[in-house]
Amino acid sequence: MNTFMKLAHDEAVHGSGNGDGGPFGAVIIHQGTVIATAHNEVLKSNDPTAHAEMLAIRKAASVLNRFDLSDCELYTSCEPCPMCLSAIYWARIKTVYYGCTRYDAADIGFDDNAIYEYLKQPALYTDTLKLISLNRDECLAGFQLWRDKADKIIY
Amino acid sequence: MNTFMKLAHDEAVHGSGNGDGGPFGAVIIHQGTVIATAHNEVLKSNDPTAHAEMLAIRKAASVLNRFDLSDCELYTSCEPCPMCLSAIYWARIKTVYYGCTRYDAADIGFDDNAIYEYLKQPALYTDTLKLISLNRDECLAGFQLWRDKADKIIY
Repeated sequence: MNTFMKLAHDEAVHGSGNGDGGPFGAVIIHQGTVIATAHNEVLKSNDPTAHAEMLAIRKAASVLNRFDLSDCELYTSCEPCPMCLSAIYWARIKTVYYGCTRYDAADIGFDDNAIYEYLKQPALYTDTLKLISLNRDECLAGFQLWRDKADKIIY
Repeated sequence: MNTFMKLAHDEAVHGSGNGDGGPFGAVIIHQGTVIATAHNEVLKSNDPTAHAEMLAIRKAASVLNRFDLSDCELYTSCEPCPMCLSAIYWARIKTVYYGCTRYDAADIGFDDNAIYEYLKQPALYTDTLKLISLNRDECLAGFQLWRDKADKIIY
């Protein structure tokens, strides 16, 4: 088994064994070195965003002191859910190795695939989540301030 | 302007004015009361996941001491990106009010829509991000342990 994937897998087994959350682990590698390991802590921290990949990204960004992780690789014991995959995208990570698939996750009760389907056409699923437009014109004023801000950092 | 949306908008203006991050704010309401306000802190905290909605969800979950926010509503100054929308889904929030659209965000340099397109067919965008299957069989062993765990909490 790949050394880094074994670390991710061991995190998954350790964390779920502890009751911290579901059986998911992730590690982030920078220049051949492990800079972050994490496992799902949704139950431990009562944080619905505390997926293994999210925590690993936050740790790695903290270690490197930058939000751009484009020179890092991520190993995760399961295919990332759309939240985590989007976070990976924002972090500019270019390569992700994953163990189990989203369908394997659904088989044990974590239906990431339902979110993938939801995101394709949110308007079909208003029973799940209603997205309601409100005060767009007023909020655009905030965007205009940003556009006009002379000293902004583009990222 | 709606009172809660004004709070979200004010957070967006305040945070981006400070240089904490882009012009995005969010608030979470529980039983008519504001329990969390947040703005984008990607630059301040060097955390690529520190979007307004993510931080608001984490604060609200901490206040209520539970990951299930199904009795909460979220107001955000801009349509959530897929990371945040997925987090909202995981938090079981049922109603989201948003100000600006994803296209307005793209106009000021935050191309959330590109991630929406990416998530529809990740296999088309391997130049952006490669997802590589590795050691699935070994990782499935961790899922089997979870399946067999007698005292697990289903969530």
